[in-house]
Amino acid sequence: MPMKKFINNPDDLTPELLQGYCAAHSDKVKLVSDKIVMRAKAKDESKVAILTIGGAGHEPALSGFVGDGMLDASVVGDVFAAPGAPKVIEAMRLLKRDAGILFVVLNHEGDVMSGNMALEMAKEEGINVKMILTHEDIAPGADVPIENRRGLGGCVPLFKVAGAAAEAGKSLDEVYAVAEKINNNMATLAVALTTATHPQSGDAIFDLADDEMEIGMGQHGEAGTGSSKMLTADETAEKMAKQVLPAANCVSGDKILLMINGAGATTLMEQFIVYRKAHAYAEAQGMKVVHSLVGEYLTVQEMGGFQMFAAKLDDELEALLNAPSNAPFWVTQ
Amino acid sequence: MPMKKFINNPDDLTPELLQGYCAAHSDKVKLVSDKIVMRAKAKDESKVAILTIGGAGHEPALSGFVGDGMLDASVVGDVFAAPGAPKVIEAMRLLKRDAGILFVVLNHEGDVMSGNMALEMAKEEGINVKMILTHEDIAPGADVPIENRRGLGGCVPLFKVAGAAAEAGKSLDEVYAVAEKINNNMATLAVALTTATHPQSGDAIFDLADDEMEIGMGQHGEAGTGSSKMLTADETAEKMAKQVLPAANCVSGDKILLMINGAGATTLMEQFIVYRKAHAYAEAQGMKVVHSLVGEYLTVQEMGGFQMFAAKLDDELEALLNAPSNAPFWVTQ
Repeated sequence: MPMKKFINNPDDLTPELLQGYCAAHSDKVKLVSDKIVMRAKAKDESKVAILTIGGAGHEPALSGFVGDGMLDASVVGDVFAAPGAPKVIEAMRLLKRDAGILFVVLNHEGDVMSGNMALEMAKEEGINVKMILTHEDIAPGADVPIENRRGLGGCVPLFKVAGAAAEAGKSLDEVYAVAEKINNNMATLAVALTTATHPQSGDAIFDLADDEMEIGMGQHGEAGTGSSKMLTADETAEKMAKQVLPAANCVSGDKILLMINGAGATTLMEQFIVYRKAHAYAEAQGMKVVHSLVGEYLTVQEMGGFQMFAAKLDDELEALLNAPSNAPFWVTQ
Repeated sequence: MPMKKFINNPDDLTPELLQGYCAAHSDKVKLVSDKIVMRAKAKDESKVAILTIGGAGHEPALSGFVGDGMLDASVVGDVFAAPGAPKVIEAMRLLKRDAGILFVVLNHEGDVMSGNMALEMAKEEGINVKMILTHEDIAPGADVPIENRRGLGGCVPLFKVAGAAAEAGKSLDEVYAVAEKINNNMATLAVALTTATHPQSGDAIFDLADDEMEIGMGQHGEAGTGSSKMLTADETAEKMAKQVLPAANCVSGDKILLMINGAGATTLMEQFIVYRKAHAYAEAQGMKVVHSLVGEYLTVQEMGGFQMFAAKLDDELEALLNAPSNAPFWVTQ
């Protein structure tokens, strides 16, 4: 039985994806050395560069956010796989500049390992790099040690904030500081309804009964808080918002960012229905939603489900989120 | 067995979706009279207004394209259903102005019926409206009478072109003329792989065997050219491009727009792999792809599949596609 996906040789998925992406957006991005997506135009060495790494299969993340005002480059691994240190150090060499590089890594074992190795090599070569780890998943509990919390879709607003600060001419320490500010005031919780097929192996990445959902599942099918009977959209939204908002330190009077990130097969219709309730819940708590993101930012193939993300904002973070960007999947005028 | 979707009462899907959408993008759009999505800011009566109509369930279409530089308003029907003439004439009254209204209708029986009735009423009331019908589906053949060809995702680039012309201060006749220019030089062909569940009835909207695809299927499961064995991404892309490009009058030397519009569950990874081949095929025919759109513009719930769209461009159409817009699902700087 053939897999029901539009693919060619499963071994060629990642290069073909990247070639297609860079052909579609050749005015904005270019493919360098097979797995490095960079801004198409010549690098501006006067500003801090923003670099990230991560496996393919989560499109538009992460390379969809390379562009003016966001990332300078993204190093892509194979499907759900880290890219490996040699490609990462190669990207660091390409981005090397006196202003320095902010290196954003989502907390997943392979990415952290590739990142740390590349970071060691960069130090030896005199490349000025500062690493920041995202770890905003609250499925294991908001209070567990950082190393036990995964980086999920919250990397995307963090790219925006850091990218805008870099574009504004901030120093590496200043860019790091605003990135850490949102990093320390954000939380994500995921929910899964239906599984996805790994596009190389053809295997389902997890199983769920026909009447069950699982809150807390990671973006590669990693176990969450256990399956439960399906809830309505409003029940699901409220249950999750009650955990996500306090974990992001959002309290009455705060300006917040609220994001519903579709996993793949969950329709935008459903995402907006869920958003409606989460927004109403936050406002009922006295919070003011000043920035909303609803749509597919970091997907898990055709999985059914979504990630709910919140961040506590201040005037600086709000302004950085609204600053101009022209990354293919986050354009702001 | 509950439906595996994040919904509440199935009867409330459309209002809840629209409330969520307008809450998420309250700086850009507002909900009027339950089913009319309008630009949030006060109307600019000096310009031609662009209006469209269509059922919910295809998000982000059509209301996702309301905003500066695109639509002024969208009248929404229930899931996969036309909105009915009373709502349409209500929107026309809200948009009434000396500059006139361009009314874009996708060729589907219910929408055409609602549209024609509202158009009659508008004439009696002295509202200046000119209707344009999109009908770019080539599944029944590129040469069959217009009334037998459906309007698919090609409405979206048409909204952009017409909206930009209106924003530039063109007259209703001039806006109609550029909309007709792209309308007469565009073509779409859809392919389906996996079905979707109707979010109200819970029924599958069509059936396909596990190893089959269907080229030409409409956006509500309407029959296409018959099912066939699955092809690879490259085979599918080339087979479709060979039909779409000539049907859009694209020949060697032409500047073209090429769009892969994901149906729902087909991943962006797959869409870019398909795009890669379609782009290469077009360029090998001597065409120059100057505008690319890859992503979900008009979906069919969580259906697996995509629409391939092409349009022959000239300098005027290319400039209108690149003009600024701030609709939530088509932002151009």
